[in-house]
Amino acid sequence: MANERVAIEIRGSRIGGGAFGLIGAAPRGLPSEVRLKIAQELADSGATMLHDGSASQTDPLFEPQAERLELLAEMRRLTGLPVAGGLMDPAQLEGLIEVVDVVQVGAFQMQNYALLKELGRIDRAVLLRRGAANTLDELLSAADYVLSGGNERVMLCERGIRTFERAYEATLDFAAIPILKERSSLPVLLDPSVARNHRHREALSVAAAASGADGIVVELARDVGPFCERVLGAATISSGARDPHRAIGDRLRQS
Amino acid sequence: MANERVAIEIRGSRIGGGAFGLIGAAPRGLPSEVRLKIAQELADSGATMLHDGSASQTDPLFEPQAERLELLAEMRRLTGLPVAGGLMDPAQLEGLIEVVDVVQVGAFQMQNYALLKELGRIDRAVLLRRGAANTLDELLSAADYVLSGGNERVMLCERGIRTFERAYEATLDFAAIPILKERSSLPVLLDPSVARNHRHREALSVAAAASGADGIVVELARDVGPFCERVLGAATISSGARDPHRAIGDRLRQS
Amino acid sequence: MANERVAIEIRGSRIGGGAFGLIGAAPRGLPSEVRLKIAQELADSGATMLHDGSASQTDPLFEPQAERLELLAEMRRLTGLPVAGGLMDPAQLEGLIEVVDVVQVGAFQMQNYALLKELGRIDRAVLLRRGAANTLDELLSAADYVLSGGNERVMLCERGIRTFERAYEATLDFAAIPILKERSSLPVLLDPSVARNHRHREALSVAAAASGADGIVVELARDVGPFCERVLGAATISSGARDPHRAIGDRLRQS
Amino acid sequence: MANERVAIEIRGSRIGGGAFGLIGAAPRGLPSEVRLKIAQELADSGATMLHDGSASQTDPLFEPQAERLELLAEMRRLTGLPVAGGLMDPAQLEGLIEVVDVVQVGAFQMQNYALLKELGRIDRAVLLRRGAANTLDELLSAADYVLSGGNERVMLCERGIRTFERAYEATLDFAAIPILKERSSLPVLLDPSVARNHRHREALSVAAAASGADGIVVELARDVGPFCERVLGAATISSGARDPHRAIGDRLRQS
Repeated sequence: MANERVAIEIRGSRIGGGAFGLIGAAPRGLPSEVRLKIAQELADSGATMLHDGSASQTDPLFEPQAERLELLAEMRRLTGLPVAGGLMDPAQLEGLIEVVDVVQVGAFQMQNYALLKELGRIDRAVLLRRGAANTLDELLSAADYVLSGGNERVMLCERGIRTFERAYEATLDFAAIPILKERSSLPVLLDPSVARNHRHREALSVAAAASGADGIVVELARDVGPFCERVLGAATISSGARDPHRAIGDRLRQS
Repeated sequence: MANERVAIEIRGSRIGGGAFGLIGAAPRGLPSEVRLKIAQELADSGATMLHDGSASQTDPLFEPQAERLELLAEMRRLTGLPVAGGLMDPAQLEGLIEVVDVVQVGAFQMQNYALLKELGRIDRAVLLRRGAANTLDELLSAADYVLSGGNERVMLCERGIRTFERAYEATLDFAAIPILKERSSLPVLLDPSVARNHRHREALSVAAAASGADGIVVELARDVGPFCERVLGAATISSGARDPHRAIGDRLRQS
Repeated sequence: MANERVAIEIRGSRIGGGAFGLIGAAPRGLPSEVRLKIAQELADSGATMLHDGSASQTDPLFEPQAERLELLAEMRRLTGLPVAGGLMDPAQLEGLIEVVDVVQVGAFQMQNYALLKELGRIDRAVLLRRGAANTLDELLSAADYVLSGGNERVMLCERGIRTFERAYEATLDFAAIPILKERSSLPVLLDPSVARNHRHREALSVAAAASGADGIVVELARDVGPFCERVLGAATISSGARDPHRAIGDRLRQS
Repeated sequence: MANERVAIEIRGSRIGGGAFGLIGAAPRGLPSEVRLKIAQELADSGATMLHDGSASQTDPLFEPQAERLELLAEMRRLTGLPVAGGLMDPAQLEGLIEVVDVVQVGAFQMQNYALLKELGRIDRAVLLRRGAANTLDELLSAADYVLSGGNERVMLCERGIRTFERAYEATLDFAAIPILKERSSLPVLLDPSVARNHRHREALSVAAAASGADGIVVELARDVGPFCERVLGAATISSGARDPHRAIGDRLRQS
């Protein structure tokens, strides 16, 4: 689009500037061993990074921070992939950055300016989730807070805004993808968690990849391989490759 | 998805049930000869149907009905494709169905129950546009009005709902596509007119095609060929073809 | 407010310009004799006008037009008050204006420009309800259509817009009252039907009256007298009377 | 309403349970001496409490915390009224509670569960502002976090939700007042700051008082006396007094 696209480097992986980022996780509710198994499947299927299901809006107070960090560290050891960890309480930042490669800022914290300023000073990439009532202007302004502190590794993530429609929890704003890409050179991701089931999440992830998103953030409980193949295939199409299926094969062989 | 998909037959063309419908038009503001030229380009590029730019929310009273119908008839003669005409004043229905193959019901009329009942009795397919403040339940209920009158050729079209976001005129609700496909067997289309420019409309059309929409309704002023190629390519991918580029070639040779 | 306020004259009653309009009805679901009894109670309690519960969004097709008009005519005969009748199908206009003093345009028809233009030519006052997804600008623009046809007796009615909040059917936009009064000289009414019960409707009607609305449109199934007393009392306060309770007494004696 | 209403005691002042709270401030942008002068006028006109204009959504980082606290302390010394201070960065809590009687939780922090839990343990009343995209259920749930920590002095404040309407910054949800009163016994306040000017804020404050709100939170730059008289008059009406003007006089003489 209009801006020169910037690629973010995260421990050898790249997102943006033509490199599609598939950031996956198992849902938080599952047992640790299942989550690790799904993490391995994601790595085997071409995922770029892992996360800890922090998209969840469930009560963060009942999620023991220590266990969560241990699981993230284990996922990283096991797969060799970089990991993103959700920050829901700013007081957890210090512990978090010892473990993760990317700090994922929850939608509720998107306008916590004190936190944003602090994130501008850390040596970790930042994944900024749009708040459910925040405009794209406000998301870009939040990113500017981090950037102006000197941290240039910021990714933007659309994950749904609140509307009158009751068929799902929030309305995914797809038009945000081309608009954010036009107004910023930062990688633009989409998280389809508001969709009600695996099939819907897949349809929306494929749509995001095809429409030029730089990546997706997703939770998967099953069918990891086929999901990744379809999304990465769509991403390859959108990047203009003439033979997406060969491109996916190449990508998997490289990883 | 869950429902068996129904294909709508319109004068030899098919939309739904695996057949992707590309319903295109030139913007209304252009001169007639330019609109006809774009109509021909659309036909040459694999479009399924033509329409008259009725997506526009401009004042219908200043659009002379006779001229509009004449242009639709001319587009049909010229290209051999079926045409869809927008209905903005129910009083225009009688004149409209003499010319068009599909009646496109504007978002403002989506809950005009008297009109919907009448549309159930006509021998023309109906393209039902979701109102900017209507839920998916209401759209499905409007479709039921037409269906219950005996007219089974109904298509559903998502074209944006009103939200707080100011970056565009309405928020395209992409999750509507998998949800409508799950709840109904009717073809589900998307109209990306609320996007601000050609490039955004293309990104969103490709996303719709890739995510399983049965078609798009779109206005194009330029780059008709590349636009159609990309969208039809994405549609072919989503339908599971192993070589989308060959599939597009086949499609164009058949048309 | 900023504009000189205009009073609309309707068969001897006035709304606007300092005269508060209490336009009441029984809910549609009740038997005719109960609706007539409530109409009489409204008249005895100081109501300015009666209506036919057309606020309802229930299916207009199953409401026999003839019975509805007969009831309106009977309410008028019985009480001597002017009556407002809802227009949900434009084809009903002709029959409606033979009976009613005010044509109430349903929210679904607010942008039916052909209808608005026709309403500009009739000799009946028009009560224009804001659509659930329409901005205040669009409501004012709809009013302009009627005014520009030569019909100057137009009233504006706020009745709720669609938002993410699920605690009620639509969010009553109270700030619409001062904004509409600033931008227009037409009477500004509020209809609290979206509230879930009598008590909420009363609280919101009192609030509307107190904040300077020119009237309310309301449905009541019980406690008609106390409701009217409280609302008219609040209206008197807002108009600057030093002793609202005496003012209400005066009003009732005059009626 | 349905619940027995609870009065919150704050340094001798009461809000709720029939006692209307007028919590006023000068806009933040004004010089300190003007803000103190307006604070005195508020006290002389019957205000219940003062605050520091924290309703503002301007960047909290550029507001020096020390100066703000000093001004709050000075307002309290000068007028003898309790003061409420806005909390925009949870790290400021410790300093804040040394000065203020009420901690005002900004809309952005409404779902900061760690903070809410902490507020449950402090010996200060809490004024909880509804987030612009939060449902009433979520506001009540946030209040429960504070209450369950043992702090029973919680007030709820509606201040606007984000909708498609562009005529103001957020849509004031008046129906929230009766609904919150029905679902909770806590005092329910309204802040009309989203209104564009003094006159609109007054109309909406009067409406809130008349419809049964337990108080308002407001910023005033002029006409403090007349504003307070009208709002307190409306509050007196809603509480059922037969002669509101005498009641206001009594109130002022007592204060």
